Amino acid sequence: MKSFTKELWLEVPVRRKIVSIHQEVENALKISGIKEGLCLVNAMHITASVFINDNESGLHNDYEKFLERLAPHEPVSHYQHNGYEDNADAHIKRQIMGREVVVAITEGKFHLGPWEHIFYYEFDGKRKKRVLIKIIGD
Amino acid sequence: MKSFTKELWLEVPVRRKIVSIHQEVENALKISGIKEGLCLVNAMHITASVFINDNESGLHNDYEKFLERLAPHEPVSHYQHNGYEDNADAHIKRQIMGREVVVAITEGKFHLGPWEHIFYYEFDGKRKKRVLIKIIGD
Amino acid sequence: MKSFTKELWLEVPVRRKIVSIHQEVENALKISGIKEGLCLVNAMHITASVFINDNESGLHNDYEKFLERLAPHEPVSHYQHNGYEDNADAHIKRQIMGREVVVAITEGKFHLGPWEHIFYYEFDGKRKKRVLIKIIGD
Repeated sequence: MKSFTKELWLEVPVRRKIVSIHQEVENALKISGIKEGLCLVNAMHITASVFINDNESGLHNDYEKFLERLAPHEPVSHYQHNGYEDNADAHIKRQIMGREVVVAITEGKFHLGPWEHIFYYEFDGKRKKRVLIKIIGD
Repeated sequence: MKSFTKELWLEVPVRRKIVSIHQEVENALKISGIKEGLCLVNAMHITASVFINDNESGLHNDYEKFLERLAPHEPVSHYQHNGYEDNADAHIKRQIMGREVVVAITEGKFHLGPWEHIFYYEFDGKRKKRVLIKIIGD
Repeated sequence: MKSFTKELWLEVPVRRKIVSIHQEVENALKISGIKEGLCLVNAMHITASVFINDNESGLHNDYEKFLERLAPHEPVSHYQHNGYEDNADAHIKRQIMGREVVVAITEGKFHLGPWEHIFYYEFDGKRKKRVLIKIIGD
């Protein structure tokens, strides 16, 4: 069994934003040389998500509106977590969108459907954060 | 390390429906011959989910009602994604229910709790779609 | 390829509660001796979640409030699933928080961000339930 590990650093200059990491994850697979296996991609921070969906900006705005309706950032005093912090909504939004994806590798490529695209969703930005790529297989 | 790959085709004749794929995934494991490992089952389309929960039709109706309350299909003009399409709600519902499950394999069988059952949830049906089964192990 | 399997038993004395299982999962990794690989941790019951987030009680109260607002336990007659049971809300809450996490193992340790902590979330307690830990790798 082979394995490959890469930490991807990101610094999103605004509080919330969807960022494509698809190409970076593809590059990691290429470097790994793994032909058959599984690839885990997860946010290493608990106020961010990794998810797979459509690369379409209208939909990304719909997600933003949906999540703000479900768990609004303000009033920050609405959340018990926000004693010294103001990011409780970010911890909740990340649970809805998910921490991680696991992607199959078949014949040296990600085995994805036609519109599957890997994204990072920042919910509490303006600082450096990491995404982990871990590939195991042969 | 051994690996096994299967794409499952489905065509759900209505917009939304929960469909059991449990037996098909069990069959794939049997064919793979893998005794210890992990099995990834994921929707290859971004308006559908794979999830594990109860095989009980009342609960499936409760999910339907819950998801329609959270992200209603109509009015379709409510969503920015719906310029040429009408399935923004499907992209949102799928994030709530999840893209994938990872199931352990122990002694040649899925290591599941007593009521765990694998389902496909179609949110934008009436066309052919795929589910991926990827098994790795020994 | 090596593999390691452990079922963790829990009995939560109240209906809903977030319980740390981080140390138990760390112990399993140590016993497994696996240095590079993936670890699946999943609830074996369909009214409970395994998730990764902050070890902070204020946030845990925020999750509780958020989930009760989205899918309230009462009135139980609101849910079709609740003919003989009263736990439909638990099946819904678990889908929002997720069934499982997959954690990378690098150089013999869980490859986690600074605040990532593994929790079990019971949504229908007062009885014995299991969490599965499955590790594969080398």
